[in-house]
Amino acid sequence: MKPHGPIPPGFRADASGMLLIGGDRAEALADAAGDTPLFVYDSAMLIARAAQWRAAMPKGVQLHYAMKANPYAPLLVHMATLVDGFDVASGGELKMALAGGMAAEHISFAGPGKRDRELEAAIMAGVTLNIESAGEAERALSIAGRQGVTPRLAVRVNPDFDLKGSGMKMGGGAKPFGVDAVAVPALVRRLIDAGADWRGFHIFAGSQALDAAAIADTQAQTVALAARLAKEIGTAPPLVNLGGGMGVPYFPGDKAVDVAAVGAALAQTLGGRDPILATSGFAMELGRWLVAEVGVYLTRIVDRKTSHGETFLVTDGGLHHQLAASGNFGTVIRRNYPIAIANRFGDEPAETVSVVGCLCTPLDRLGDQVALPHADVGDLVAIFQAGAYGASASPSAFLGQGPAGEMLV
Amino acid sequence: MKPHGPIPPGFRADASGMLLIGGDRAEALADAAGDTPLFVYDSAMLIARAAQWRAAMPKGVQLHYAMKANPYAPLLVHMATLVDGFDVASGGELKMALAGGMAAEHISFAGPGKRDRELEAAIMAGVTLNIESAGEAERALSIAGRQGVTPRLAVRVNPDFDLKGSGMKMGGGAKPFGVDAVAVPALVRRLIDAGADWRGFHIFAGSQALDAAAIADTQAQTVALAARLAKEIGTAPPLVNLGGGMGVPYFPGDKAVDVAAVGAALAQTLGGRDPILATSGFAMELGRWLVAEVGVYLTRIVDRKTSHGETFLVTDGGLHHQLAASGNFGTVIRRNYPIAIANRFGDEPAETVSVVGCLCTPLDRLGDQVALPHADVGDLVAIFQAGAYGASASPSAFLGQGPAGEMLV
Repeated sequence: MKPHGPIPPGFRADASGMLLIGGDRAEALADAAGDTPLFVYDSAMLIARAAQWRAAMPKGVQLHYAMKANPYAPLLVHMATLVDGFDVASGGELKMALAGGMAAEHISFAGPGKRDRELEAAIMAGVTLNIESAGEAERALSIAGRQGVTPRLAVRVNPDFDLKGSGMKMGGGAKPFGVDAVAVPALVRRLIDAGADWRGFHIFAGSQALDAAAIADTQAQTVALAARLAKEIGTAPPLVNLGGGMGVPYFPGDKAVDVAAVGAALAQTLGGRDPILATSGFAMELGRWLVAEVGVYLTRIVDRKTSHGETFLVTDGGLHHQLAASGNFGTVIRRNYPIAIANRFGDEPAETVSVVGCLCTPLDRLGDQVALPHADVGDLVAIFQAGAYGASASPSAFLGQGPAGEMLV
Repeated sequence: MKPHGPIPPGFRADASGMLLIGGDRAEALADAAGDTPLFVYDSAMLIARAAQWRAAMPKGVQLHYAMKANPYAPLLVHMATLVDGFDVASGGELKMALAGGMAAEHISFAGPGKRDRELEAAIMAGVTLNIESAGEAERALSIAGRQGVTPRLAVRVNPDFDLKGSGMKMGGGAKPFGVDAVAVPALVRRLIDAGADWRGFHIFAGSQALDAAAIADTQAQTVALAARLAKEIGTAPPLVNLGGGMGVPYFPGDKAVDVAAVGAALAQTLGGRDPILATSGFAMELGRWLVAEVGVYLTRIVDRKTSHGETFLVTDGGLHHQLAASGNFGTVIRRNYPIAIANRFGDEPAETVSVVGCLCTPLDRLGDQVALPHADVGDLVAIFQAGAYGASASPSAFLGQGPAGEMLV
């Protein structure tokens, strides 16, 4: 038997043992969708996440949503009412953000490979471009010149530090993201001299960290870096995007981030910040932390079989919707995401089984030798922490399968 | 500097140094497509692959195409003229196979999680189902009974051996695929007794192997297993699908499979086979080996930048089209696929660079510290061995990017 990640708090069953999501029975949701597999996102839980963050953070710090985590249109519409801005990573995401109801002035666009047509669309719409290189700055200025508009440009900084314990390091050393800190002052002066509306800094050191002290330490370094750069430039940044970094517990032993501790430390950091940043605004950009926990992936058992003494539950889902949960995206060692039998939720484990997807590849495993209640054909498997980097970050066309359903409740 | 995989033989440049694909200049293909990134598949090279296989294999052995490797519609139409059958892995692929012009009687359908509606569609169309479990057998018989037709059923066997040196092991020990060999005779008798048209065995021990001796050894074991099962059943299988197994050289040091040696060994194996298999047909099911090498992924450089002394070429492509090449699919250690600057093809390397995609994640790396000719914004990067498990096996919607173009020349 191998352990699985912790089931997020807040999920419970009705008297029959059926998992409830947003108060609805999992089986009823699958019925309403008309098919499985299905992603269900709980809007009330999303409201609670945003509220938890706001309660913990110092007043005035903005909450931005990194929509790469989940661009499902109804979720974006809901999210636009909960956060202060969207961060997009492509021209495609820019369109979705505007369609989701976020005002252009609250959208920023980061990404190392922006094409000219994406720069054009962003400048025309009036969103803030997080400039990733000197070359991109010149392209943006030239496009804005042709359009006859003043571009809103921030500079993405490649910091000299990373986020300790983060699943993805976005800073510290040679990176394709942003401009090395040492080169930032000259670039910002170039933007200001060229007449651009300089919006500030975007500094993202890493993501998927669970240790509040490490996150707080990185935020302190980020604010100090912003102050140092501002002094060299001689102008305060209107906004410092502190990045994100707050992860969620996917695996056995993982513990949720102590958000109150992050907030308290940030209050201290901002309280003691260099006077040059006195009028600057600050934002955190969160994707995974906001949406992972609010999503559940439901997939139905199609076959139950035994091979050489091991039991397999074969489902109608798989890595084509859950690439990361299958262990094939951003992880070296495969570990089990939180998993349950949705219609026997809370039952004691009765056997050790492997839960696999319907794809004809040994990579397609959703639960490896996990202890679960006895389950059979027709039962529903639930994979938790499925709200981020699921549907849109998986190869849905693989083996001719197609996308899963999605639903906001 | 880190090495990259070998450029497949057969690719050359014109006098200006521009890579030719199917005789066309890479830049002209990108122009014709109207955009990059772009997958280009070379139909002449595909004809040559099939011909090479037929020249090496014993007469009468059938060539089947595992279409999961590449389901691009124009390629399927072309492929249908070159091979003896298609193997599909879902109801979606079944539709594509029929639309591609392959007759139902030459299509077989394997996959561990077939839904009832997929079984129905397959039985109604008259394709052969490779049965994966006793439970699936009963569902298929019951559906065929309701339809009033005789189902064509083969049994997928989980062999007791694997394919040595294979990148993916599909047999040997507990697997979600097929029926354990020990349980096969009883299941086949059940199918025959129930009035099904028993089509034989599907025995797939592994894939992506480069060692001809290992492949030959597995094929010998497979034929011996088929004979042993046939004797226990008391009836010869009409067809034995020997699986595939033949891989392609992706990484430094990889050598192409010695196909002639595989063919010679198979001739010997079949020549000495047990008399009970005298009238049986044999097939090999190839996906990757047929199509990987005929595909090139072209992506344009959008930015060139330096960070802490390292040079990055940022492209308009990335892991959303090339998940495996980025090192995030089925490999534990990331190594470089074959890569070149398409418009400076054959130039000597002049610098060490990292080629990254346009996605805002450190996972998005197409070439890690590779030695290439000097390249700049606007130049084209070519990733080779891109014809299999590329477009359809990557998360194309990730970060709002969308699919790449595809073209058969």
